[in-house]
Amino acid sequence: MRAGDLIFKKRRGETLTKNEVDYLITGYVKGNVPDYQMSALLMAIFFQGMTDEETLNLTNALVNSGETIDLSNIPGFKVDKHSTGGVGDTTTLVLAPLVAAAGVPVAKLSGRSLGYTGGTLDKLESIPGLKTEMTVGELMAAVKKIGVAVAGQTGKLVPADKMLYALRDVTATVDSIPLIAASIMSKKIAAGTDGIVLDVKIGDGAFLKRQEEGFTLARLMTAVGRAAGRRTAVAITKMEQPLGRKVGNALEVEEAILTLRGEGPPDLEELCLTLGSRMLTMAGAAKNIDRGRAVLARILRSGEALQKFAELIENQKGDGRVTEDLSLLPRAERIIAVRAVNEGFICRLKAENIGRAAALLGAGRWKKGDPVDPAVGITVNKKIGDQVEKGETVALIHARDTASAGIIAEVEELIMSACVFVETPVGKPVLICGYVGWEND
Amino acid sequence: MRAGDLIFKKRRGETLTKNEVDYLITGYVKGNVPDYQMSALLMAIFFQGMTDEETLNLTNALVNSGETIDLSNIPGFKVDKHSTGGVGDTTTLVLAPLVAAAGVPVAKLSGRSLGYTGGTLDKLESIPGLKTEMTVGELMAAVKKIGVAVAGQTGKLVPADKMLYALRDVTATVDSIPLIAASIMSKKIAAGTDGIVLDVKIGDGAFLKRQEEGFTLARLMTAVGRAAGRRTAVAITKMEQPLGRKVGNALEVEEAILTLRGEGPPDLEELCLTLGSRMLTMAGAAKNIDRGRAVLARILRSGEALQKFAELIENQKGDGRVTEDLSLLPRAERIIAVRAVNEGFICRLKAENIGRAAALLGAGRWKKGDPVDPAVGITVNKKIGDQVEKGETVALIHARDTASAGIIAEVEELIMSACVFVETPVGKPVLICGYVGWEND
Repeated sequence: MRAGDLIFKKRRGETLTKNEVDYLITGYVKGNVPDYQMSALLMAIFFQGMTDEETLNLTNALVNSGETIDLSNIPGFKVDKHSTGGVGDTTTLVLAPLVAAAGVPVAKLSGRSLGYTGGTLDKLESIPGLKTEMTVGELMAAVKKIGVAVAGQTGKLVPADKMLYALRDVTATVDSIPLIAASIMSKKIAAGTDGIVLDVKIGDGAFLKRQEEGFTLARLMTAVGRAAGRRTAVAITKMEQPLGRKVGNALEVEEAILTLRGEGPPDLEELCLTLGSRMLTMAGAAKNIDRGRAVLARILRSGEALQKFAELIENQKGDGRVTEDLSLLPRAERIIAVRAVNEGFICRLKAENIGRAAALLGAGRWKKGDPVDPAVGITVNKKIGDQVEKGETVALIHARDTASAGIIAEVEELIMSACVFVETPVGKPVLICGYVGWEND
Repeated sequence: MRAGDLIFKKRRGETLTKNEVDYLITGYVKGNVPDYQMSALLMAIFFQGMTDEETLNLTNALVNSGETIDLSNIPGFKVDKHSTGGVGDTTTLVLAPLVAAAGVPVAKLSGRSLGYTGGTLDKLESIPGLKTEMTVGELMAAVKKIGVAVAGQTGKLVPADKMLYALRDVTATVDSIPLIAASIMSKKIAAGTDGIVLDVKIGDGAFLKRQEEGFTLARLMTAVGRAAGRRTAVAITKMEQPLGRKVGNALEVEEAILTLRGEGPPDLEELCLTLGSRMLTMAGAAKNIDRGRAVLARILRSGEALQKFAELIENQKGDGRVTEDLSLLPRAERIIAVRAVNEGFICRLKAENIGRAAALLGAGRWKKGDPVDPAVGITVNKKIGDQVEKGETVALIHARDTASAGIIAEVEELIMSACVFVETPVGKPVLICGYVGWEND
């Protein structure tokens, strides 16, 4: 078997066998298949796609490249949740304690993704003292003890995915649906939970722009999950405008706490109930989605979910008092209001612009290892459908004292150009486009 | 400018600007653009293609990556010739002395290509004593003195093409028409001749299988040549069966000598007259193609072309007596006849099989630096359209004493399966499909 022949085979649009995929991934990890052959293969996959079976074989090859976590010592049906990422997506911080408070163990491995804001780990670490570095043993002990843990991925899980992702990032081969599916599912399968709930974002602020791409990815991940013996459900959700009102690291922790108090923005709460109810029914903790939603809504109002978040924080060496006192979170020195220069109804609030504005302030990360600023970001006061008077505050910029006037002007410009006004009333946009997977099997 | 963004741009099917192409090629040569980005770009180019202007910009970037040869000190209109390569393609060995004998200076840089047999340099070097390593000064002195030289490419010409070709070879991106065009034309332009005649092979034994691909490549190379100020003419010719009767290194030298004596196989002579007459008219040494053909046919018959070949050989330190005494060429110890097991007319004689058979015997090279065996190869006694009796010799295998019975059996099997017989008479196949370029401008 020669890598060049396999690239040619894929380039012609043929299907690689399990052995061929194993040869390529094993060889890549060992250094026998060099980067330059793998990147050519990835580009060929971008153009020619992969069958469901090929994607499954790729996923399994990635899983087999490293260690896997065995959660069977933890009683009950364990669930995990993953989002393909959007602007202001704080759902994990709400869902992990919420679902755990309903009695379903949540063992969540998160990343420090590249993007407009940090990943879930960065957001959590904006809580004073909180640690996310855990061994697998510590993770399991935490889930056994309080039912929930959110930890960094260990270097030993899916090393081939880490290598492939780094390569895709610099070779314009990130947005290939089978490659995305294999990357996500390999991490979820290696992490060892029984059920997986996925949130595939589509739209302006997401990776995938078109709805059918979201459904294709959802269908493919569900097929892979099923073949791997995991209950898998996917919601396809809109990311046209930022989710909730806050974009930033500590700002999103603040928003998660508000939501866990039952005081969160409606879209974020709705998404958490949607995904959470699937996690509950999947685990057998609720008979159906409606019952699951009702349970979760009650737990939000009762304060049990907030209490579970405080437990999670304390258990990971953080200061749990933040759940009662938001002023303990890092704050930027300057808050600058962005005011409407016109009146009207907001018909667009481009998520990507808001994300880029937060990144300019320092909330994001462009390359691995870069620090993120926990305090900075954007608060969006008005969303699509809202009526705005001239001079009214549309958004707040949370900036450092050290931010230059040029940066602030650029951030303001990004926010202004994110908002599109019309004279006639505009409806609230659809948040959830559809579902694929376990519940619908 | 970032390489990843440019890969993405090309992947989307957009056109790279001159600056962008220069950035990529300069960066690649300097090591700032790594192999893995270049191979992803090449695969994206395979799928998305390049415009004529992009291909020209790529060609120029390749030319500018190294030195170029200035032939202006040699009086007259200098011509070069290049073939995209086929099985038994001995035209250069005939054309270089033939055209030079007609008074048009030929400065030919050749390669040691990978393939079923060696490249032109390997074939020439099967002549005892002959050297092809020359400095540019030696090449020019040779052309000034006797009107012709065939030399190895210096390492300083188009280094970016050498790097790119090595990468394409292992990443299944060789057969991209704009990449082929830029690679060929960059070498021809850097070599400094005023005119370029190209032979684009199509069919079973060629790189390009379909006629329209041949015309596309021809049209593109002509456009690039014209933009670079070189007269460029292309013949698109068939490579369904081997050209001439001999496939191997010394065997093809033998066939070239026979052709220069006016005793060569009709298809090889026809192709040499076709390409040579274009070289003559391009250089102003003949008024039109028909006059050019007449001049060349006369020179073949008169022995002047053979005499020029002897001069070339002697001038490059070889034993010129081979032109009179073929037994001075290396010979394989064993000659094995392959006999027809049926009778009928040959309707196919798959060039690729014959090429693979020659390669199995040791005539070819699979990786750079491998030696080629000058003596081994195949003689094809029957060609498409020929009638064959049962038991008649179809081909001869020229093998070493050391060749195993298994190899010989495999070679026989390849030759047998190359020949397809039918009961009814078959016409001789078309050799030349068409012309593109200077003459037709």
